Amino acid sequence: MNSLIGRKVTVKVPATSANLGPGFDTLGMALSYYDELIVEAVAGSGAVVEVIGEGAGEVATDSSNLVVKSLAFTFEKFGQKVPGLKLTAHNIIPHGRGMGSSGAAVVSGIVAAKGLLEGIVKISDQELLTIATELEGHPDNVAPALFGGLTIAWEDETGPHHKKLFVHRGVSPLELVPNHKMSTALARSLQPDSVPHDDAVFNVSRSALLIAALTQSPELLLAATEDRLHQDYRAAAMPETDSIVKLMREHGHAAVVSGAGPSVLVLASDPAQRLEAAKLAAKHYPQWKALLLAVDFKGATVALHQ
Amino acid sequence: MNSLIGRKVTVKVPATSANLGPGFDTLGMALSYYDELIVEAVAGSGAVVEVIGEGAGEVATDSSNLVVKSLAFTFEKFGQKVPGLKLTAHNIIPHGRGMGSSGAAVVSGIVAAKGLLEGIVKISDQELLTIATELEGHPDNVAPALFGGLTIAWEDETGPHHKKLFVHRGVSPLELVPNHKMSTALARSLQPDSVPHDDAVFNVSRSALLIAALTQSPELLLAATEDRLHQDYRAAAMPETDSIVKLMREHGHAAVVSGAGPSVLVLASDPAQRLEAAKLAAKHYPQWKALLLAVDFKGATVALHQ
Repeated sequence: MNSLIGRKVTVKVPATSANLGPGFDTLGMALSYYDELIVEAVAGSGAVVEVIGEGAGEVATDSSNLVVKSLAFTFEKFGQKVPGLKLTAHNIIPHGRGMGSSGAAVVSGIVAAKGLLEGIVKISDQELLTIATELEGHPDNVAPALFGGLTIAWEDETGPHHKKLFVHRGVSPLELVPNHKMSTALARSLQPDSVPHDDAVFNVSRSALLIAALTQSPELLLAATEDRLHQDYRAAAMPETDSIVKLMREHGHAAVVSGAGPSVLVLASDPAQRLEAAKLAAKHYPQWKALLLAVDFKGATVALHQ
Repeated sequence: MNSLIGRKVTVKVPATSANLGPGFDTLGMALSYYDELIVEAVAGSGAVVEVIGEGAGEVATDSSNLVVKSLAFTFEKFGQKVPGLKLTAHNIIPHGRGMGSSGAAVVSGIVAAKGLLEGIVKISDQELLTIATELEGHPDNVAPALFGGLTIAWEDETGPHHKKLFVHRGVSPLELVPNHKMSTALARSLQPDSVPHDDAVFNVSRSALLIAALTQSPELLLAATEDRLHQDYRAAAMPETDSIVKLMREHGHAAVVSGAGPSVLVLASDPAQRLEAAKLAAKHYPQWKALLLAVDFKGATVALHQ
């Protein structure tokens, strides 16, 4: 009999916003908006998943569920037999909106595995990131979901890496979320193979500046969130998103496309500016949901109750 | 009679290293290696320049001297009549080596003007940067020469801008300087008009990381100084520079081309690592001069003695 049977973990994983304007495929930020999950190891094999909230009635509720697959993948990486699983997911991160729901699902499964295997297998932060990147394809959403804060993620021949940074306390994120979805695959297909050297240099300067703005100087966020490498290429596929970003920026708010869209992230430099931006959004786009969030500094958490 | 006659200023301007690997046309650092200048307002018009050290016998010694032209340009910007000028320059920043000698000359002239006009015209930091950029063409060398430290420089429709950052105390610059020169114009001509999107994203990640590495985490400097936007394109024009950068990097030292080259800047993460790098350079490239420098945090200084 599997010794894990009866073990139960609760997992909490933050939403994330990747890219942040100039930092395409590199920068990401964890937001105080969480999916929560209870996972129980039970006798037998296979999985039973109950989803409450976002994704209910849409995502798979058996072993092909993304959380379950990520959990099982992690068990197998460490040579552990996967027990029967009972999952209850309370999801609030909307799917297909550029808020890292898929990265959150992957991370949920991995940290649930880490929790269930506590005392049996030790999984390092670097291993968590490597597994998550293998499953998600890119480290830019999974790094902030795992570790919180602002993350710079990159890959080299030795695998994915990240650097976590603390964000200046003034920075006040506002996530504007529409009812419609955007496919990340479609968004990616709109990217050109090559870009003008000047545009590359433009983003190099803005991404460097964005690190300074987010960690030290929020007053520079408008200049620091300019981008020429992805947002314009995708604008035609998300006209409303493009209009909101432009409207916000014309009014001095540092708005960017959140991840692959269609949501918009406004990085206000203080809560008062955020309130102005939220009012502007409510006036012109009342059907978009406005989430006034904090930067999450913890990342994914897991607690074992056995 | 010009009321300035008899005024005398001493000016000190640091060498700079621009680009720093991924931060092409954006990042720059001021180094503790200074040109010094005495400028005296005398009766009459025209200029007499004495150059001691680097550039002696090469640079112009009349009104066409770059320092004098920059000084005169600044006077004219503020509607001031240029007096007769007597300059003595003590130069140690070598010319055509990628150490910002031309930016230093421009900045010398501008801050000399600021000093001579003290109490008559007030010149703001932003005005200094705007004038220097107008004269030099790019803000990436003149920003650190003016303000010191690590600078992120960028331009938009309102002009040039900069953000100055303090550098982690561990960071230990080593400048390796050959006897031969490199033309910045030639270096620029080797740049492609367009680059792969992946390479642009690569440098976006590394330039963001470089800000984190230089301000907080020197242990990340090797990864943070990788570049795909300029160094490889120019390698064939500077084969020895390219070899040194590669040799250093293979040994774990964060080496980059200094400015447009041919000098090499090694950003060691502590003094011990710098010593190792200097030994390695001395062994394989004994004819290159090794300068163990500090980051300069003051930038250009001017003192009026009347």
